[in-house]
Amino acid sequence: MTAPNSSYDVVVIGAGLSGLSAAKLLKSSGLNPVVLEARDRVGGRTFTVQNKQTKWVDLGGAYVGPTQNRILRLAREYGVQTYKVNETENLVHYINGKSHPFKGPSPPTWNPFVSMDLNNFFRTMDEMGKEIPREAPWRAPHAEEWDKMTMQQFIDRTCWTSAVCRFAKLFVNVNVTSEPHEVSALWFLWYVRQCGGTMRIFSTTNGGQERKFLGGSNQISECMAKELGDRVKLESAVYKIDHSGDTVVVETLDKQIYKAKYVVLAIPPGLNLKIHFSPELPPLRNQLIHRVPMGSVIKCMVYYKENFWRKKGYCGSMMIEDAESPIGLTLDDTKADGSVPAIMGFILASRCRELSVLTKEQRLKKICEIYSKVLGTDEALHPVHYEEKNWCEEEYSGGCYTAYFPPGILTQFGRVLREPVGKLYFAGTETATAWSGYMEGAVEAGERAAREIMHTMGKIHQSQIWQSEPESLDVPARPFITTFWERNMPSVGGFIKFIGVSSFLSCATAAGVIAYKKGLIPLK
Amino acid sequence: MTAPNSSYDVVVIGAGLSGLSAAKLLKSSGLNPVVLEARDRVGGRTFTVQNKQTKWVDLGGAYVGPTQNRILRLAREYGVQTYKVNETENLVHYINGKSHPFKGPSPPTWNPFVSMDLNNFFRTMDEMGKEIPREAPWRAPHAEEWDKMTMQQFIDRTCWTSAVCRFAKLFVNVNVTSEPHEVSALWFLWYVRQCGGTMRIFSTTNGGQERKFLGGSNQISECMAKELGDRVKLESAVYKIDHSGDTVVVETLDKQIYKAKYVVLAIPPGLNLKIHFSPELPPLRNQLIHRVPMGSVIKCMVYYKENFWRKKGYCGSMMIEDAESPIGLTLDDTKADGSVPAIMGFILASRCRELSVLTKEQRLKKICEIYSKVLGTDEALHPVHYEEKNWCEEEYSGGCYTAYFPPGILTQFGRVLREPVGKLYFAGTETATAWSGYMEGAVEAGERAAREIMHTMGKIHQSQIWQSEPESLDVPARPFITTFWERNMPSVGGFIKFIGVSSFLSCATAAGVIAYKKGLIPLK
Repeated sequence: MTAPNSSYDVVVIGAGLSGLSAAKLLKSSGLNPVVLEARDRVGGRTFTVQNKQTKWVDLGGAYVGPTQNRILRLAREYGVQTYKVNETENLVHYINGKSHPFKGPSPPTWNPFVSMDLNNFFRTMDEMGKEIPREAPWRAPHAEEWDKMTMQQFIDRTCWTSAVCRFAKLFVNVNVTSEPHEVSALWFLWYVRQCGGTMRIFSTTNGGQERKFLGGSNQISECMAKELGDRVKLESAVYKIDHSGDTVVVETLDKQIYKAKYVVLAIPPGLNLKIHFSPELPPLRNQLIHRVPMGSVIKCMVYYKENFWRKKGYCGSMMIEDAESPIGLTLDDTKADGSVPAIMGFILASRCRELSVLTKEQRLKKICEIYSKVLGTDEALHPVHYEEKNWCEEEYSGGCYTAYFPPGILTQFGRVLREPVGKLYFAGTETATAWSGYMEGAVEAGERAAREIMHTMGKIHQSQIWQSEPESLDVPARPFITTFWERNMPSVGGFIKFIGVSSFLSCATAAGVIAYKKGLIPLK
Repeated sequence: MTAPNSSYDVVVIGAGLSGLSAAKLLKSSGLNPVVLEARDRVGGRTFTVQNKQTKWVDLGGAYVGPTQNRILRLAREYGVQTYKVNETENLVHYINGKSHPFKGPSPPTWNPFVSMDLNNFFRTMDEMGKEIPREAPWRAPHAEEWDKMTMQQFIDRTCWTSAVCRFAKLFVNVNVTSEPHEVSALWFLWYVRQCGGTMRIFSTTNGGQERKFLGGSNQISECMAKELGDRVKLESAVYKIDHSGDTVVVETLDKQIYKAKYVVLAIPPGLNLKIHFSPELPPLRNQLIHRVPMGSVIKCMVYYKENFWRKKGYCGSMMIEDAESPIGLTLDDTKADGSVPAIMGFILASRCRELSVLTKEQRLKKICEIYSKVLGTDEALHPVHYEEKNWCEEEYSGGCYTAYFPPGILTQFGRVLREPVGKLYFAGTETATAWSGYMEGAVEAGERAAREIMHTMGKIHQSQIWQSEPESLDVPARPFITTFWERNMPSVGGFIKFIGVSSFLSCATAAGVIAYKKGLIPLK
């Protein structure tokens, strides 16, 4: 059955932020797009639920921060305000069964070796990252070498102390919901780099987790969908694309047929597999889409009667290193006005797969137990409500937050990630060059794909496809200043070498002096 | 539209060897199966082409050998005969621009260090393999540790000489069409083990490449399809399975609807993604199918007027270690009666991805050039015909020969590989426990899935699901006898330690003797 008015300029597949941004730009440029969405809602990996207990809660992508100017521009356009995630009181680092309160982006330590080692871990990643082109990581001078390595191998080579080795695992888990041994070092270093470096990606204040959207992140998708009106078709999962003729023919599970000049696939690369293509995709793309799985995460929100952690001097941010803890990282999820006290926690990577088999109640129990230990109070054992979302079970996401590249894939297949195939163009946050994996990357990718088509149609010049974005006035970025000490502190390895050489020189000098004094060195 | 007579006991998806074996067994057990095949032919990853120039040629799976008793049983039933791949004359190992003729499964060397090192490489893999349960590799005592390692890491730890490091790469490339840094060490060690060990998997004589089927391997699928008659539906790609009710409803691209009590998915795990499931798959399976990509290979057959290599004392088997060579391994592909002289060669893994962008003619030219170098004659430069098949471009295979597991996946997701989901059962060679990745594994898996359903239906006892297979009378297996020397030869590391200790002891003894002689050790 062909739907009425089923001929369009562009069929956009996926009504997440990327697809909707693409359609919005195409429409405002005078073109005629339609957006086909598999689910019964828009927003994709952003997902805001409203109910009495929570008012509203973001069970998917939620955080936004400085340098994410595209998503902030859309928010401003639709009057969606941001508020800062609470980081007033102390953060807490839980390790070896003890809680260590601290301030700043990463836990400090009394041990100078650990301190040197942690500084060197961050500095090495940032320095290597500078060699990796954001738009073409496969062109980095050491691309092949780094892509053959897993992040675990990078950690084993870079970190000397067990404390930093463990922290490095958490850093990978939290940022890409995967294990260090699962991901390519080149890919992870690129990922951190294209977010602006280790401090930008990992920080709450002045970093990727600085803010949330008041009322939930899904409002932005909903506003765009409203603007697009009946151009957005829900429950319209695409299963077939015939791009053999002048017109591309797209078929959906609800038996509708959409025709267009071009298609934007604004879905994760792996979900391209949900579609039967005629003609088949080229060999490299056909294999790429089998090689970039999505990470594993359950987002868990525990609600309490009172914001008891703030009273104890904790802001609600916990970094938890404990083999038995379901949760790796938490943030305060209390509303901006102080209502609905809650803690957001992530069950990450291998823990996520292990705990997927439990019931919701069993997970909640385990979570409250660890919060009680970390925050040092039984109050954490008495939640008033619980919300969670296991993204691994979503057929039309495949996981969250984003796709990862196992070793060897980025250098061999990366270059076809967003390379158009005839009339097919590729969006989705995975194809972005800044904040890929985030809401920001989704918008960059969607707008870029829209402009690629506008260029093909002769409406804009090639140089206009990639556009930079002015800085948000609401959320300006401050630079991260590294101190002289951070830049020049030796690594543990360097320090040991230094100590080795100095000891040798000192001993040699001392021996010389003694020998001289004892008259063993005759002065002629 | 519901097809006439569209209600079945079992819908089998995929008319490769696995799906057809399942349907054959179900039918002969009195059940009513139907087989839905996406392509316009049966056979899946086996693919025999007939034409004037080649008579017939296997562009997909072709080789068969001892211990592959299920596929040999089917061949015997249908009167398909096997013949031995020619290995009468010398094999040749090409390395550092020179050809070294040899006999036996792996190239010998004059260098005792390389010899020790190669022996230790094979021996270590076989010894570790013995710890890995064929049916549950995730239960191996060191499963987690080995799964976090890539095969490249295993090679770096195990091999001392650059010659063996390079050979090890070729060994991985040839056996699983992937790069050592792409695959989990646990998975690769399991893979070799479940084929019967390093010698069985890699040998022509007495190994996996001993024989081919006279007339082509696809005959077996064709005979099964003929037996199944109009139960096999071609050009019927499945895009939707509704398994929410008592009856499973399966929809195909040609708008047919098939209903059944059970479904067997006899397709590679990654191709489960071509199907929209209602309800969604459980979280672990939903993520598994994004994590097990297919290898990369182009199978290339070069035809010559004359069988010139045999005249020069070469059988046609070449192991080629050369960064510029498109081909890694060749075998003689001349017909059993000596007609249609040809050489079969594989373009493997990263070379496959690089050379996918060339034209067929460009690839042929490069292939003939390396054959000419290795065989030392210009005759190789004058082919009379060329056939090739790039399996990376096949939407309904995703690659060949089989799926691989990147690091970390087998231990976390392996246990759901063939675990039924409600009325859905899983076959395909990837789910086999012996010769997984081969035609043999496809048959094992298909028959096992059929018997799982028969057990669920109360027709057989649980203990009958897994059945061993009597040894083929036509193709008996001989054991591989390792010599005392092979079992006990030290590794290079062991040898160096031994030499170190002996040198120390010799020196100490010598020093003692000299000291004594010089009267420096007073004997009171």
